[in-house]
Amino acid sequence: MNKTEPKTLSGFMELYPAEQVVFDNIKNTIVETYKSYGFYPLDTPVIEYSEVLLAKAGGETEKQIYRFNKGDNDLSLRFDLTVPLAKYVASRYNELVFPFKRFQCGKVFRGERPQKGRFREFYQLDIDVIGDEELSIKYDSEIISIINDIFTKLNFGKFKIRINNRKILSGFFDSLNLSDKVTDILRIIDKLEKIGEDEVKKELKEFNINNETIDKIINFITLDKDIINTLKNNYCDNELFNTGVLELESVINDLKLRGISEDNYAIDLTIARGLDYYTGSVYETTLVDYPGIGSICSGGRYDNLAEFYTDKKLPGVGVSIGITRLFSKLIEAGIVKVENASSCDIMILPMCEDYKYIYGVYNEIKKQNISSSICFIDKGFKQKIKYANRIGCKYVIIIGEDEVKNNIVTLKNMIDGSQLELSIDDLSNINNLIGG
Amino acid sequence: MNKTEPKTLSGFMELYPAEQVVFDNIKNTIVETYKSYGFYPLDTPVIEYSEVLLAKAGGETEKQIYRFNKGDNDLSLRFDLTVPLAKYVASRYNELVFPFKRFQCGKVFRGERPQKGRFREFYQLDIDVIGDEELSIKYDSEIISIINDIFTKLNFGKFKIRINNRKILSGFFDSLNLSDKVTDILRIIDKLEKIGEDEVKKELKEFNINNETIDKIINFITLDKDIINTLKNNYCDNELFNTGVLELESVINDLKLRGISEDNYAIDLTIARGLDYYTGSVYETTLVDYPGIGSICSGGRYDNLAEFYTDKKLPGVGVSIGITRLFSKLIEAGIVKVENASSCDIMILPMCEDYKYIYGVYNEIKKQNISSSICFIDKGFKQKIKYANRIGCKYVIIIGEDEVKNNIVTLKNMIDGSQLELSIDDLSNINNLIGG
Repeated sequence: MNKTEPKTLSGFMELYPAEQVVFDNIKNTIVETYKSYGFYPLDTPVIEYSEVLLAKAGGETEKQIYRFNKGDNDLSLRFDLTVPLAKYVASRYNELVFPFKRFQCGKVFRGERPQKGRFREFYQLDIDVIGDEELSIKYDSEIISIINDIFTKLNFGKFKIRINNRKILSGFFDSLNLSDKVTDILRIIDKLEKIGEDEVKKELKEFNINNETIDKIINFITLDKDIINTLKNNYCDNELFNTGVLELESVINDLKLRGISEDNYAIDLTIARGLDYYTGSVYETTLVDYPGIGSICSGGRYDNLAEFYTDKKLPGVGVSIGITRLFSKLIEAGIVKVENASSCDIMILPMCEDYKYIYGVYNEIKKQNISSSICFIDKGFKQKIKYANRIGCKYVIIIGEDEVKNNIVTLKNMIDGSQLELSIDDLSNINNLIGG
Repeated sequence: MNKTEPKTLSGFMELYPAEQVVFDNIKNTIVETYKSYGFYPLDTPVIEYSEVLLAKAGGETEKQIYRFNKGDNDLSLRFDLTVPLAKYVASRYNELVFPFKRFQCGKVFRGERPQKGRFREFYQLDIDVIGDEELSIKYDSEIISIINDIFTKLNFGKFKIRINNRKILSGFFDSLNLSDKVTDILRIIDKLEKIGEDEVKKELKEFNINNETIDKIINFITLDKDIINTLKNNYCDNELFNTGVLELESVINDLKLRGISEDNYAIDLTIARGLDYYTGSVYETTLVDYPGIGSICSGGRYDNLAEFYTDKKLPGVGVSIGITRLFSKLIEAGIVKVENASSCDIMILPMCEDYKYIYGVYNEIKKQNISSSICFIDKGFKQKIKYANRIGCKYVIIIGEDEVKNNIVTLKNMIDGSQLELSIDDLSNINNLIGG
């Protein structure tokens, strides 16, 4: 028979088993944390009507989308989880309870040109709170506390949640009569860390901004001490600006009240987030020792989630974690390791035919909530233990005729090779014995 | 602004928040059980090269597939998780450890004509063990024990795992010189329960089978007492048949040794599974009190997982649970209820401004691993408790000035309305108080 080459598309992550264990652990930690804050799960279709998905989009997004016809329908694969959320909330407005807290974990699709570190299919893990007409700013700090909780648990090393408020930025540039250039200026100052102060100045000059104004801009975005008090102290005579400062102050105060370590967050007036979408708090998160990885979690506050679908004003605040890219970067930087990952903590190696006894032992272990399995390969001890070793089991349980006769099992530590004889009664305590 | 109607495609499940909580609980129970048996997670792309996905397919599958071009590539959305598994194992044969135990939970896509109870996008939760050249029959019973474990935990009521062996069927029909008609006959007898004995006889006659042979077929498929001993006792002089009987006997014996309740499984010689794919054990699972729902979990043993991609002989055994269809049937039949589902067990209702105290209480509760949230709506007590009620929280914690002054909180049971004052120290024991 002619064989088809079993190839996978480039730009589509497909992991080895041990890698997938680590990936899933990260995903589950995030999802479980989202859930623990009382957020509802949501699961929208991968395929939507193109006109619905593209109600707002345009430009790059529209070019990247996977779009096709099936029957009479013009269909597209979702390219983010925000548009489906907007669709969902707009179409079910009357049935939902606001503030509506939801998270969603799902794959999204963007047919970009493939390049290193970019994926065409990737997971987003989004969390948002949506209000009806209004939404307390306390949710802005709740989102930050959730990010803090997640990256503390994930233990990737020091992280910093960098916080800003778009009103401060917009008001500031308004006061300099640069409102018509805000989008460009934001784009440029967003690059401060990447390209440095001189390059930012140069790029700003290209927009016909005079030197005095450029100095004001640079002074503003490089403030780094007592920022809120500086900004409150007649720094800028603009209402939007001052509203933004009060919002930012409220968020920062709330983080202190929540007891979040001040090592884990900072005000950063250069954070703008590329999109026009955000209107208040904005966040980015970086791993302090790996700045090259860039932001690993970003989001913010928006005034109108679903304006393309409804007249209802639905403000919200949220963040997104793109774990497909994050995972590839973590592996690349050696921050997470897959060598010790396994699907199985204990493997039973049957060395006799008394399966009533063997299954009895297995049932006992499974009661203790330990991921475990029985090696059914029809070969000798050496092959069986080699299999357990390749699977990465930390322990094996050996059951031969002697064990059955004496009503015990032999527990072998696969790392240090030590062995222990356990009675059947000991099995109910096996979690402590294996440090699980 | 012109609004786009936020509509969702028909045949694509999109649930209300409380429904999604119940759906996810079912999904998680299945996934956690798969993991507990030492299976690796796997996550293959949704999009694959059409030539890879369709290497084997044809007929109905090919018509249903979502297929499109992007750039120069002919792409398709996966229509099951078996073909991607075959691709994965064939392409990574040298790196995998066999027997390779994996599960996968993911959406698959079939552009069928929409009809009640049919979905175009649906979850499959698959579990398989793949061997290299050979695979112990003990894995056939392991798969059954996993199904048994899952449906015991899910508690949908009485269930029956119906077990057969394709070798018995093939050998039996071979002995009747009906080998060239096996596919048709299997298709007909598979319908026995649906259409009844007379209709099966009628359909068999249409294939020019004489009455004597039809009687033998009917006798065979309606055996219901001491089946294995009857089949072993010179029932049929055919080698394949007798091999199948021994395999079936081995599987059934193993289930007894595993201590699985005999209420939960039965031999059923009419089970054939439509596909040509299966070559040994085959399974279907039904809810005893809801036969109309049909099989909720099926699968079996196959000789060649990946013959379209590789010369390696890769036998395997597995099952698939289609929970999208299952969930819709469970709701329809009233077997699961969503009324009491909530994303949040305890909601804190702040009735004063001492957020240092309020966040302190929240941090304490979160340490206890309880899904909980704080109500930040800027309204009076009535509105706040109404919100907690609509979210479905079983408990609220009220914190007003009195509570702060006395260093306590008020815990209110939302079901019976009873209230309890708790000290801050009591919070570390709150799981017991709320019966969580």
